[in-house]
Amino acid sequence: MTTDQRIERDSFGDIAVPAAAYWGAQTQRSLENFPIGGQRMPIQVTHALARIKRAAAEVNAAKGLIKPEIAKAIVAAAEEVIEGRFDDQFPLVVWQTGSGTQSNMNVNEVIANRANETLGAGLGAKAPVHPNDHVNYGQSSNDCFPTAIHIACALAVSKKLIPAVQRLHQALAAKSKEFDSIVKIGRTHLQDATPVTLGQEFSGYAAQAEYAVVRLEKVLPDLLALAQGGTAVGTGLNTAVGFAEAVAANIATQTALPFVTAPNKFEALAAHDAVVFAHGAINALATGLYKIACDIRLMGCGPRAGFAELKLPENEPGSSIMPGKVNPTQVEAITMVCARVFGNHATISFSATQGHLELNVMKPVIAFAMLESVDLLAEGIDSFILRCLDGIEPDLPNITRFLERSLMLVTALAPRIGYDAASKIARAAHKNGTSLKEEALASGKVTEAEFDAIVRPEQMLSPGA
Amino acid sequence: MTTDQRIERDSFGDIAVPAAAYWGAQTQRSLENFPIGGQRMPIQVTHALARIKRAAAEVNAAKGLIKPEIAKAIVAAAEEVIEGRFDDQFPLVVWQTGSGTQSNMNVNEVIANRANETLGAGLGAKAPVHPNDHVNYGQSSNDCFPTAIHIACALAVSKKLIPAVQRLHQALAAKSKEFDSIVKIGRTHLQDATPVTLGQEFSGYAAQAEYAVVRLEKVLPDLLALAQGGTAVGTGLNTAVGFAEAVAANIATQTALPFVTAPNKFEALAAHDAVVFAHGAINALATGLYKIACDIRLMGCGPRAGFAELKLPENEPGSSIMPGKVNPTQVEAITMVCARVFGNHATISFSATQGHLELNVMKPVIAFAMLESVDLLAEGIDSFILRCLDGIEPDLPNITRFLERSLMLVTALAPRIGYDAASKIARAAHKNGTSLKEEALASGKVTEAEFDAIVRPEQMLSPGA
Amino acid sequence: MTTDQRIERDSFGDIAVPAAAYWGAQTQRSLENFPIGGQRMPIQVTHALARIKRAAAEVNAAKGLIKPEIAKAIVAAAEEVIEGRFDDQFPLVVWQTGSGTQSNMNVNEVIANRANETLGAGLGAKAPVHPNDHVNYGQSSNDCFPTAIHIACALAVSKKLIPAVQRLHQALAAKSKEFDSIVKIGRTHLQDATPVTLGQEFSGYAAQAEYAVVRLEKVLPDLLALAQGGTAVGTGLNTAVGFAEAVAANIATQTALPFVTAPNKFEALAAHDAVVFAHGAINALATGLYKIACDIRLMGCGPRAGFAELKLPENEPGSSIMPGKVNPTQVEAITMVCARVFGNHATISFSATQGHLELNVMKPVIAFAMLESVDLLAEGIDSFILRCLDGIEPDLPNITRFLERSLMLVTALAPRIGYDAASKIARAAHKNGTSLKEEALASGKVTEAEFDAIVRPEQMLSPGA
Amino acid sequence: MTTDQRIERDSFGDIAVPAAAYWGAQTQRSLENFPIGGQRMPIQVTHALARIKRAAAEVNAAKGLIKPEIAKAIVAAAEEVIEGRFDDQFPLVVWQTGSGTQSNMNVNEVIANRANETLGAGLGAKAPVHPNDHVNYGQSSNDCFPTAIHIACALAVSKKLIPAVQRLHQALAAKSKEFDSIVKIGRTHLQDATPVTLGQEFSGYAAQAEYAVVRLEKVLPDLLALAQGGTAVGTGLNTAVGFAEAVAANIATQTALPFVTAPNKFEALAAHDAVVFAHGAINALATGLYKIACDIRLMGCGPRAGFAELKLPENEPGSSIMPGKVNPTQVEAITMVCARVFGNHATISFSATQGHLELNVMKPVIAFAMLESVDLLAEGIDSFILRCLDGIEPDLPNITRFLERSLMLVTALAPRIGYDAASKIARAAHKNGTSLKEEALASGKVTEAEFDAIVRPEQMLSPGA
Repeated sequence: MTTDQRIERDSFGDIAVPAAAYWGAQTQRSLENFPIGGQRMPIQVTHALARIKRAAAEVNAAKGLIKPEIAKAIVAAAEEVIEGRFDDQFPLVVWQTGSGTQSNMNVNEVIANRANETLGAGLGAKAPVHPNDHVNYGQSSNDCFPTAIHIACALAVSKKLIPAVQRLHQALAAKSKEFDSIVKIGRTHLQDATPVTLGQEFSGYAAQAEYAVVRLEKVLPDLLALAQGGTAVGTGLNTAVGFAEAVAANIATQTALPFVTAPNKFEALAAHDAVVFAHGAINALATGLYKIACDIRLMGCGPRAGFAELKLPENEPGSSIMPGKVNPTQVEAITMVCARVFGNHATISFSATQGHLELNVMKPVIAFAMLESVDLLAEGIDSFILRCLDGIEPDLPNITRFLERSLMLVTALAPRIGYDAASKIARAAHKNGTSLKEEALASGKVTEAEFDAIVRPEQMLSPGA
Repeated sequence: MTTDQRIERDSFGDIAVPAAAYWGAQTQRSLENFPIGGQRMPIQVTHALARIKRAAAEVNAAKGLIKPEIAKAIVAAAEEVIEGRFDDQFPLVVWQTGSGTQSNMNVNEVIANRANETLGAGLGAKAPVHPNDHVNYGQSSNDCFPTAIHIACALAVSKKLIPAVQRLHQALAAKSKEFDSIVKIGRTHLQDATPVTLGQEFSGYAAQAEYAVVRLEKVLPDLLALAQGGTAVGTGLNTAVGFAEAVAANIATQTALPFVTAPNKFEALAAHDAVVFAHGAINALATGLYKIACDIRLMGCGPRAGFAELKLPENEPGSSIMPGKVNPTQVEAITMVCARVFGNHATISFSATQGHLELNVMKPVIAFAMLESVDLLAEGIDSFILRCLDGIEPDLPNITRFLERSLMLVTALAPRIGYDAASKIARAAHKNGTSLKEEALASGKVTEAEFDAIVRPEQMLSPGA
Repeated sequence: MTTDQRIERDSFGDIAVPAAAYWGAQTQRSLENFPIGGQRMPIQVTHALARIKRAAAEVNAAKGLIKPEIAKAIVAAAEEVIEGRFDDQFPLVVWQTGSGTQSNMNVNEVIANRANETLGAGLGAKAPVHPNDHVNYGQSSNDCFPTAIHIACALAVSKKLIPAVQRLHQALAAKSKEFDSIVKIGRTHLQDATPVTLGQEFSGYAAQAEYAVVRLEKVLPDLLALAQGGTAVGTGLNTAVGFAEAVAANIATQTALPFVTAPNKFEALAAHDAVVFAHGAINALATGLYKIACDIRLMGCGPRAGFAELKLPENEPGSSIMPGKVNPTQVEAITMVCARVFGNHATISFSATQGHLELNVMKPVIAFAMLESVDLLAEGIDSFILRCLDGIEPDLPNITRFLERSLMLVTALAPRIGYDAASKIARAAHKNGTSLKEEALASGKVTEAEFDAIVRPEQMLSPGA
Repeated sequence: MTTDQRIERDSFGDIAVPAAAYWGAQTQRSLENFPIGGQRMPIQVTHALARIKRAAAEVNAAKGLIKPEIAKAIVAAAEEVIEGRFDDQFPLVVWQTGSGTQSNMNVNEVIANRANETLGAGLGAKAPVHPNDHVNYGQSSNDCFPTAIHIACALAVSKKLIPAVQRLHQALAAKSKEFDSIVKIGRTHLQDATPVTLGQEFSGYAAQAEYAVVRLEKVLPDLLALAQGGTAVGTGLNTAVGFAEAVAANIATQTALPFVTAPNKFEALAAHDAVVFAHGAINALATGLYKIACDIRLMGCGPRAGFAELKLPENEPGSSIMPGKVNPTQVEAITMVCARVFGNHATISFSATQGHLELNVMKPVIAFAMLESVDLLAEGIDSFILRCLDGIEPDLPNITRFLERSLMLVTALAPRIGYDAASKIARAAHKNGTSLKEEALASGKVTEAEFDAIVRPEQMLSPGA
């Protein structure tokens, strides 16, 4: 972009804008007033705002409220924005007005300028298409922005996160099946316990992923209710009867997601409990994912001085000082992602408490944190599946060694010889460093044949008859 | 309780127990080993464990695994525990083993002793009813305790919290209806905006409460899945085929809640994403409740030097130094409750990440935090309804004064005279401290008759034709 | 307490109070208005309020503002409260007015009644000693309550928590010394790394505890600044010049802690950044303690199928189903305590953001959460030291076995044969399941004598020459 | 960058690298293995790593461990990196290995390539300067990366955040002085209370900022202790005696901050309590800042239908639908920043609990969150000062109107006519909507002259004689 400038004007007066910029005065003013951080408004929110502009133009045109040729130009420009062709024209940061007004105006300005351009007018002309009077017709930032948050988040959750978690579920379920016959020691309290199969362990992880999908689907309806039509304070002043419903239907068609107009617009502008609840499912996904990743790391701990029950794919050299070292780096990346998600949950929950009267003005940071969680988790999960999970192999010699040495196989003896006698055998073996069998025979409670018949890990994997 | 003692014994040896105590060696050992804090294991968890013992005895007896007379005595004793008749016999604190084993043993011991007592044996006899061999038959703490958490939490959410939030919804909806015709100034960004009715504002609060109920109902199924039958590590070792399903059905009958056996027991022992998700709905309730309470306080701010749009019930003197001062104390109590709930959410989410392999051993603190949230919110909401919400009255003179002075009524002029002209009028009035009408007439853009016809707050409360 | 009642009166009218109660109308009103939860105002806050009453009486008497005999009776009654002789007379819960006014009045009422009793008057007489006019003279709840929070928290941190953490440091340092010569495998990324001594590992833990003490000492001054003297809004209206300084000095003498009057009373009433910062040190203690406890559990993981490098004291039977199982229960208790502390940190931080203008009205929950953290950590640490840490022993055979098998000893070869050659040796051993020595000799890069001279774990424990 | 590539090699084999890239195989591998999110490793960490490389080269050269010409080339290249001339050569994201190994290697590779370039060799030559053998000599990622975190965070806190908070303090103190004589109503519980000056209110804010500086200075020493010299596991294997101390001294000289070598390297690699504590001061700053910003917004609430005691600078149009509306957008930006900081605190605290044995592998996300908090707060504060705080003006007519109407001026009468009589007067005025004076005279307790002499707000601003 050159240093050429043009002069734009709003109710605060003149302001210089880069000559080639599609944005206008209000965007420029925000750009200058908020030199904070640099984290841009998530592009998904911008695209969602453009979807609203497209829907509003179509609905308003159908109602005869704006002229067809104006509407047509707005729709075409909005589509270009949705497609990402103007992503560099949305320079505003998250840390702006808490209603997102300036990002709404950014979209209004870019679409108006692009529409005017296609209609033969210059940038900054504000005619024939005016950013407020046409692109923003019948709307307020106060209903557009929360609508855009819901659109962006519903799309992100349904099109990006849920599919990723479904892939995680499939990958875990496949491993569970693959590991079905591998009997290993179970551990509770990080202490030896009775046997499980490696497949059973992975079935637990698969169930966690499966339930996470169900939870995400459960919270999705909360995001499908749109604030649009509430305008400034929820009353719908200066918009037309039926506008709200028609816009929601239009966006549903655009996105193939069943968006509806929010039953209560006052709630929709002033409260964001819906996002808190939706991110609650994401938070629960992250707590579960953290557990799965840590278990895999723990079972892969080694290669010589740990459990070493699992062999994790080796993706890169792990140490600049220890030759040959390889680390569970994908586990580390995904656990850090989870830590970020926990922070985002705190940010969103806090922000939702701080609505005042007709409007919650923590909207941009809520959108930012929610969409960041989705992106990080979805991309982190896919990397974790591809570069770690799918390649995990059992280390059978280690698995067998640990299983055979376990004292908790004594549990199988308890129904036969009693809890107390069994306990004495296990504790004697523990104390003496002997095997369970040695102490069991020494106890005189069982014969060798009996011991061999009863203490069989492969028979300790399910309820009895 | 006197200082008389009896000697009990477990695999660690002898230990003195108060002679009159129904608990036994393992409870006593825990009591001595964890002199921390003093927060007792929530009694709801104890009662839920007793429900499990009752169910297990019935199921095991039906399967011929324990004798009918033993089962009958266990059932009778368990019912007494469920009824609360032995609440003082459960002295253990939350800060014990992370599997809740000791609280499970506490229940086993009390029920066994009480059952033996009714069968004519002395405390500590362990016969004819043995705490492990009979009361705990076919069970492990590792499946009992998470089952008890789910039972206790599902009961608390469905029988205590949801009804309280439903009452909140009704109270808010009633106020919304009562305030339906009161037109007042709306505020966004804590700045004057276009008008709303007080009823519309309360409709937003009512919608928040209504949605909170829906969310709590959505998360409830997660709590209805029971771990029972997984025994030590999820495999179900040492329990009978069908035990899991039969116990879940029995508890469903006991509680009139549709409990089912968890499809995957490995997940049910090792992960608590379900509680994280369930508390996520509680967290969203708290964020919403916080907003509602703060709005009511803000609109009640005064009596002379604030908004003073609402008159809150006066329940007690508010100041030891300022005569006649009255404060919104119910708002303060409920907002502090919300702050505690946010802390509990952090505790539960953290704890759920920390499962290792076959067992999460943060169970007691998870149960404690979840049940505390339910109790505080349900009781706090009821107090808030009774002592604040139901008695709120509008202060009509103040409401009218603020409404009439507002400059944002200019919004109604915008469609007529344009955004820019309207903006100039509002800013002139703001700058000059004049009324909107004065400046509008001075602008020459409208006549007095036009102004009076257009700038009518009561017509600014809904979408246009 | 019998059901006999007496009638008390305040500006809201008559109210029945239990005849034997030392509290009066305002306490009773709060008791009835806040039937929430049941968590009582921490008794430390009550005792601290009594210290203020004692100090104020002495200061006011010295200034001639209240009569000597009145002051003397107040001081005597306050001392009894401080000693805990009236702990059952403070029934109010945390979830009350956010200024703690009612708990301040509870203390005023109990002290007035007790003082009157010692002067021959009946309960409820309000003469010769009046709860407001004498006990509360020159004070407001708005300065008393934050002063009490600081007194209670400063005492708790300095007298209870810091000593416990110092004991933790000593216990860890003792273990570090004890384990000084035990060479073991180090682990990074939960993967085998170069050797360390067990003593070095514990030296790290000891350093964590040592730094935690330093941090607690650093935050203590924030708690030593007292709000007293600010009265209702920070101005000090209705109190005497010099009162603030004299009360702070008096409390310093009472407690042997260097309390001072807060330089700015407006900040002291309206903001609680000081408690947030102080609890930040507690939060950092908890993050560190969590790490220490988890490491100890991990190194104690076994006894047969884990690291089993440490033998933890066995305190109680660990399983109702697995005979002979013993679990690291003290680790589990302290980790759950940490999880609660993280929740308290969230609660306190949230609450501190919510001050409005002259007063933060989240005070009781801030005090409650902070004091709970101190109690749980101090008591949990002492139990952890006594029942776990002090009794930890190394399992030398396991330690040695893991050390000898490690491939990361190859790091010692790197300076001699180069990173790449060393890497090949380690990876070959890993792939072939052979020993490092076998592959090193096979590589032809070193002789056996060289290998034996270089690859010596006991020489890999510090920087080289 | 063209699509030309060169082939690099590490122990995992060949890998194609962009021909013009200064990075090498390990960076490229990370780039391909972690396609997550896109948040780059904070450039401050990269610059800090370059400082370490420079220091290490100088120290190693002085010890004769690497050749002078090699060291000289490394130092020159490192200086270029520190100056930001190669910022585009560090493409790695935060979500990588948890030790930051790959970012350490990125720095090693870029410096080696640049050094070789200046010495006449081509990119990828690895000679004469080798990334591991020379740039990383005597170091491990495990000590470099935590050292870099401390350097980056200490610089950020001391050079960026503390100065910003000092400017905040000065700005608030200036306003406090400016507003010294403006008497206004105080408010507690958001209810009218006794008078304060606007200057007193701002003195409280100024004190908060002042204390925040003190707290940041208190935590800084925790960040000044450097892990460097611990190498792989804390023992210092493969580095020279004295290296740790010399590097710390070198970096102290480079930065003019008193860095020292960490007394215990095991703690320095495995625990990050220091960052948790340091961010605790930032958290406390954010809680305080949130309160200040909200107060200013609340006092600016209006312009017609709120307190309107303050006039905030008007920076941009506030509404696309309400002409003339202006919003407190700088308040909104800074409060959203605070919400993000609270999330970062949760992320950092969580991450610090998850160290395992010799190494915490959540390092990148800890660094990322901490540095984000500093940047956002420092930049947000400066914007808040410039565009909001400095331009705040009192609205004297509104201030006076509220003051005069307040009923809490009655407090001044209490010492004269008693608390009960004063209370009756205030409540009568409240009930009847009359003035305090009317009711006071009607009560017969004071004459008009007395009332006028006593009820004078300007005399209610400090302790009495």
